[in-house]
Amino acid sequence: MKQLLVILVLLSTQIYAQDRDEKQIKALYHQALTEGSAYGWLQHLSTKIGGRLSGSIQAQQAVDYTKSLLDNMGLDKVWLQPVKVPKWVRGTPEFAYIESAPGITNNVAIRALGGSVATPFGGLKAEVIEVQSIEALKGLGRERIEGKIVFFNRAMDPGLIDTFQAYSGCADQRYSGAAEAGKYGAVGVIVRSLNLRLDDFPHTGAMSYGNTPVAERIPAAAISTNGAELLSTTLKLNPSIKLYFKQNCKNLPDVDSYNVIGEIKGSTHPEEIIVVGGHLDSWDLGDGSHDDGAGCVQSMEVLRLFKATGYRPKRTIRVVLFMNEENGLRGGTAYAKEAFAKKERHIFALESDSGGFTPRGFTIDANQKNYEQIVSWKNLFEPYLIHLFQKGYGGADIGPLKDDRIVLAGLRPDTQRYFDHHHSDNDTFEHVNQRELHLGAATMASLVYLIDTYGIK
Amino acid sequence: MKQLLVILVLLSTQIYAQDRDEKQIKALYHQALTEGSAYGWLQHLSTKIGGRLSGSIQAQQAVDYTKSLLDNMGLDKVWLQPVKVPKWVRGTPEFAYIESAPGITNNVAIRALGGSVATPFGGLKAEVIEVQSIEALKGLGRERIEGKIVFFNRAMDPGLIDTFQAYSGCADQRYSGAAEAGKYGAVGVIVRSLNLRLDDFPHTGAMSYGNTPVAERIPAAAISTNGAELLSTTLKLNPSIKLYFKQNCKNLPDVDSYNVIGEIKGSTHPEEIIVVGGHLDSWDLGDGSHDDGAGCVQSMEVLRLFKATGYRPKRTIRVVLFMNEENGLRGGTAYAKEAFAKKERHIFALESDSGGFTPRGFTIDANQKNYEQIVSWKNLFEPYLIHLFQKGYGGADIGPLKDDRIVLAGLRPDTQRYFDHHHSDNDTFEHVNQRELHLGAATMASLVYLIDTYGIK
Repeated sequence: MKQLLVILVLLSTQIYAQDRDEKQIKALYHQALTEGSAYGWLQHLSTKIGGRLSGSIQAQQAVDYTKSLLDNMGLDKVWLQPVKVPKWVRGTPEFAYIESAPGITNNVAIRALGGSVATPFGGLKAEVIEVQSIEALKGLGRERIEGKIVFFNRAMDPGLIDTFQAYSGCADQRYSGAAEAGKYGAVGVIVRSLNLRLDDFPHTGAMSYGNTPVAERIPAAAISTNGAELLSTTLKLNPSIKLYFKQNCKNLPDVDSYNVIGEIKGSTHPEEIIVVGGHLDSWDLGDGSHDDGAGCVQSMEVLRLFKATGYRPKRTIRVVLFMNEENGLRGGTAYAKEAFAKKERHIFALESDSGGFTPRGFTIDANQKNYEQIVSWKNLFEPYLIHLFQKGYGGADIGPLKDDRIVLAGLRPDTQRYFDHHHSDNDTFEHVNQRELHLGAATMASLVYLIDTYGIK
Repeated sequence: MKQLLVILVLLSTQIYAQDRDEKQIKALYHQALTEGSAYGWLQHLSTKIGGRLSGSIQAQQAVDYTKSLLDNMGLDKVWLQPVKVPKWVRGTPEFAYIESAPGITNNVAIRALGGSVATPFGGLKAEVIEVQSIEALKGLGRERIEGKIVFFNRAMDPGLIDTFQAYSGCADQRYSGAAEAGKYGAVGVIVRSLNLRLDDFPHTGAMSYGNTPVAERIPAAAISTNGAELLSTTLKLNPSIKLYFKQNCKNLPDVDSYNVIGEIKGSTHPEEIIVVGGHLDSWDLGDGSHDDGAGCVQSMEVLRLFKATGYRPKRTIRVVLFMNEENGLRGGTAYAKEAFAKKERHIFALESDSGGFTPRGFTIDANQKNYEQIVSWKNLFEPYLIHLFQKGYGGADIGPLKDDRIVLAGLRPDTQRYFDHHHSDNDTFEHVNQRELHLGAATMASLVYLIDTYGIK
């Protein structure tokens, strides 16, 4: 009899918990869809401030704006965490053309890669050698590369369902192409934009010269996919055509900047910290709406949703808007450094940095037990069409927090349109849909709610 | 020993089948993503032909164009099925303003509802009474409605995850508002656009006067959501403001048109027919890219994918591009009528008429056994992030085929953006993403492949 009673009590507790969780998650989604603030915040960030590369005036404006939003949310604490960031400036607009014969030219759209040096003042004109990979440089050797512009033209694989996988398969050309081609005497590098679509937008992004001495660094630029197709075809017709390009970008000394942080103190386990975040910096092209204005406003929205639904977290919920993800990761690194130094106990960190599209689920970086704990909540997400609970990468900014206890996760929105916009003039506010953005925020809030309620076991 | 052998043979047959199915489905997706034709076809249909309301020149051009595509696909048979369709013309652009005091006016964007009569030649100016539903008319009574314009302003519920559900919750205002308001002596009807976003696009759509005598029919138009908000606010400030609107749309006698049909004859069960289709007509606003150019090109693509991957269907696969879904359903009705008259054995019909966005799965209209048969294939779709296998409506055009044996299904793409575009000037080609469109076609082809392989049990 006593046993039966225990079973009944346990069962009713479980039913009660399931019911309570369903109700709270429903309240979060309903609040986000009917009274969400993220879209309005993003409109300001994107259209009133715009692209906000680390060290720029816009980046500082973004710090000020988001701090003022957090200041007005009734959080328990809001602060700025100082961080030194690199400063690179694009300078005057880039210019490039294909010269198929003396005096016969076709302009092509290029943008300097982030971190690249300038061309000589009058620009750079040279023959072009097309390759599909860094490895191919070796086969060609210095003889066929020296004095030329190396054109990396490997396209993203359209056959992959996950476009981030297609991106990963090509990003090395952009990141290391100049350092590697320089070793063979190349005078410049042009990289096919990481875009699955054929269009006229060049897509910039981080590059590194590694340990190449300053004097030996060669300029690197992204060419639009249409431009890459034209250049490749022109080369097939006549391998001795030339490419001209001119850019006057510049690396400047590091400057002061900040991570923007706010938190709700946990009611019963304040020492256990849950981080939700995105990165506040963006490239200078477009206005950084998808990358990663979306992630920032969604992360702030998670805290607002808790407040608006009257949910009082047990654990400390901290929103972190990281500075300098794009070209240095200084914000993420500094945040983790201080957290470790202060022996703060971070149990979970969730990043949104894959665009503001319809959420599909999460990638989860955790041990098997904790992964299964999260998967056990899958049915709670089903009414919201959240179905993806996949082992994988959490996010760049939260990566430095990794230790053997923390669970890291990344929001996974639909990826099909993302690289139409990423790092280009085409990453602008009108390409974000309000409902999709708000569904993402509610999805994040729901997982944070569950982790807050049950802890990480 | 013999038993063991039987088990082993059965098991290896099953493993072989699973492997074969995985490979064929992978080939379909890969072909669609790397060499898909649907997007190029849609570009022509949308940008060279455009909006194609039943009975218009554009509708005939769409018939000719899609027939020529099917003619060149190497199908076993391509034909046109004659169907009489209603013809309604919008006439010169509509015009409307709110008159808050004599001489003080604000223009608002309206479009006549499809099937509506014109206003008097000089337009119509009257006081406005705002209601939230057809039921509310009764409470007001003739006294408060007579001589006025009834303004139906019930908004789509943003709290619903599935936007089609939100649409269904409001569409009665548009469809029957004029017939119902007319009974109380209203002189005109203005309906809030079925759009979850606040913007300036009026969204048209079908309306019906039911059995209202011709002389008593009152004109009806959709107002943009921004216009609806303005009108509602203005009315709150002063209930006696007036609205002026003018439209000179017209219903004309029925004209000849066609369903466009093509098929691959089944190799072993040619008498069992599988239909895949969308509707070729669209509203005259925008270019009908999402509604339902997308569904048409995806349906044709299903047959192309089979050809391109070398798959020879066992059963007859028929693509049907239905005419006149939007304002009459004459194509769907005529197709089913002939199919029943000829005693054709249709086992499965799949419609795509919910936009060309990222596919999420299917709604399935079948008995429990057949529904479970389809759900048993769920794991084959998982790599393509297709997770939704939900009982529900197949589609308007295939609806008339329903009997107690056929399985009907609808492709379910992501719904969040759909009503930003639906039936408005904003349903245009640039809002369709190539990869999303092609993923939808591959998803349809994969289900058709499985039904073709295993039949309906």
